[in-house]
Amino acid sequence: MPQEAEQIKQTYAGAGVSIDIAAKAKELIGKHARSTLRPEVLSGFGFFGGLFEFKGYNQPVLVSSVDGVGTKLKIASALAKHNTIGIDLVNHCVNDILTCGAEPLFFLDYIAMGKLVPEQVEAIAQGLAQACCEVGCVLIGGETAEMPGLYAGEDYDLVGFIIGVVEKEKIILGKAVAAGDTIIGLVSSGLHTNGYSLVRKLFGITPSALNTQYPELGRTLGEELLEPHRGYYHQLKPLLPIIKGMAHITGGGLVGNVPRILPQGVAAQFHSRAWTIPPIFQLIQQQGNVAQDEMYHVFNMGIGMVVICSPDNADRLTGQLPEAKVIGEVVKQKGGVRVIIKEK
Amino acid sequence: MPQEAEQIKQTYAGAGVSIDIAAKAKELIGKHARSTLRPEVLSGFGFFGGLFEFKGYNQPVLVSSVDGVGTKLKIASALAKHNTIGIDLVNHCVNDILTCGAEPLFFLDYIAMGKLVPEQVEAIAQGLAQACCEVGCVLIGGETAEMPGLYAGEDYDLVGFIIGVVEKEKIILGKAVAAGDTIIGLVSSGLHTNGYSLVRKLFGITPSALNTQYPELGRTLGEELLEPHRGYYHQLKPLLPIIKGMAHITGGGLVGNVPRILPQGVAAQFHSRAWTIPPIFQLIQQQGNVAQDEMYHVFNMGIGMVVICSPDNADRLTGQLPEAKVIGEVVKQKGGVRVIIKEK
Repeated sequence: MPQEAEQIKQTYAGAGVSIDIAAKAKELIGKHARSTLRPEVLSGFGFFGGLFEFKGYNQPVLVSSVDGVGTKLKIASALAKHNTIGIDLVNHCVNDILTCGAEPLFFLDYIAMGKLVPEQVEAIAQGLAQACCEVGCVLIGGETAEMPGLYAGEDYDLVGFIIGVVEKEKIILGKAVAAGDTIIGLVSSGLHTNGYSLVRKLFGITPSALNTQYPELGRTLGEELLEPHRGYYHQLKPLLPIIKGMAHITGGGLVGNVPRILPQGVAAQFHSRAWTIPPIFQLIQQQGNVAQDEMYHVFNMGIGMVVICSPDNADRLTGQLPEAKVIGEVVKQKGGVRVIIKEK
Repeated sequence: MPQEAEQIKQTYAGAGVSIDIAAKAKELIGKHARSTLRPEVLSGFGFFGGLFEFKGYNQPVLVSSVDGVGTKLKIASALAKHNTIGIDLVNHCVNDILTCGAEPLFFLDYIAMGKLVPEQVEAIAQGLAQACCEVGCVLIGGETAEMPGLYAGEDYDLVGFIIGVVEKEKIILGKAVAAGDTIIGLVSSGLHTNGYSLVRKLFGITPSALNTQYPELGRTLGEELLEPHRGYYHQLKPLLPIIKGMAHITGGGLVGNVPRILPQGVAAQFHSRAWTIPPIFQLIQQQGNVAQDEMYHVFNMGIGMVVICSPDNADRLTGQLPEAKVIGEVVKQKGGVRVIIKEK
């Protein structure tokens, strides 16, 4: 019996989960989340559900999306810089629902770590809140999970969920896209959030690899790789009425994403010399001797958003989007390949 | 130069990310997701955003929540049984928004693995779809991420996002809760989705540990631990008009969750002998010599949902909820402790 009395009292904290630290992290997130509030929000941050009063629409359609940022997280951890990864995530989500013509309403995040570090959670939340504020989106809720044994060392995962709205008559799905339409490309700010597992394999993520200066990049590899995913909401919002289809170029590249907005019987034909492929992609290709086809399947190759419009509207679009370029056209195509990339 | 020509061509698949396997996984998820469709859904599964036409409400308030299932995932992996973990996740989310009085509309999932196994993803999706169907919630979208180097071996993470709706005048936030009100408890089906890191530390997750039969459980430890998180939507929906407050008992237990619905000046007083604490909790407590206080902070202790109503309505509630029991009452309390657990 004395033996039993002396048995160590086990605790949740001793098993690697601290409810107190989780509460501290939530408080820090809440501080940033409050900066994103809109009058429609009826609940405080931290209730079981986030409450958003929904009014002022005629025939509203809710548009939702969920995304992660892939192993770009590993770069953020390697550089101990966590205040931009939230920008990546929010912009990724906002771009996704923008392709349907939707404006963002609210956003929820999920942060999971092996060991919760409140300051790190706060840095992530700061990025989330900053990007949410830029597009008028409320950071209405979230979940912070401490999961020892699932995430090793300083690893974490970060997931975002967005809800937006579009009037039914203004939904853009690409159904009107037709042969002869013009394809316009908006430049990306780098890799955005895709292809990082390949990049990590090619370069590694040691300090010496990430701190290497490349003349063609004009900065270190790490700085280039952490450049936030660009958001296109403000640029494209005023032009939505003349846009027939939009494809956000994420995993799968031009080849994987553009077919999602093409009706039957047409293909998208790109002229790869119509835009400048940024140096980071050439560097990756050389480093890994990656085939040209593979590059276009994995990376955005410098185009973050593809916009399709009728030829009549092409000048108006490019006139209002200084960095945008005509990069191809929609052509007739019976079955088979939906995306053609011409080296000219 | 010959050396360069012979350099191995690096590919995304070679770096551990297969776009083809991801496509296969998405197809399998889509099969199950289609079983959850409602006429409001305007887009196919797999577009950039899920489109849900929103109509038929007067003063709608959208209620959202995000959740994971914690390291219950580790038990699912250890037992290679993945078709119920999705039920856990959906029920957790549905219960969360139910606390505000909301009915579920649609759900999105995020599945991240080190190495995508389409059959495993399908089993998870089957559970998600089954639980969504049970409450009329559409599985409208999701993200499947392959992240080598972030998730080891067969580890994965699973996150759910839910959107529901409640008429503004029917929102339940606990604001009307007052001293003298009755507290009713709905039994849980076991641990639900909390406390697994502690349980794993105490018992381990080796086959011999999980396959041990316990007479008091009437089954193996593994079976007990994988029992799905119970959903309370159908039971509570018809009773919402007479409910003043609801707390979903997840991480933090009664002590952490009930204060979220208590106004200032009151506390919740529980009588722990008013309900039967299921044998699994006694087993855990003995195995780890866990303090009684700690047990109530970490586990639900047999109560999955707490419902507060005026004493006049208590009989009606318990009459219609055969398993529910009066387990306490709201008392006056100035500051300090918000939850009192009496051993009587």
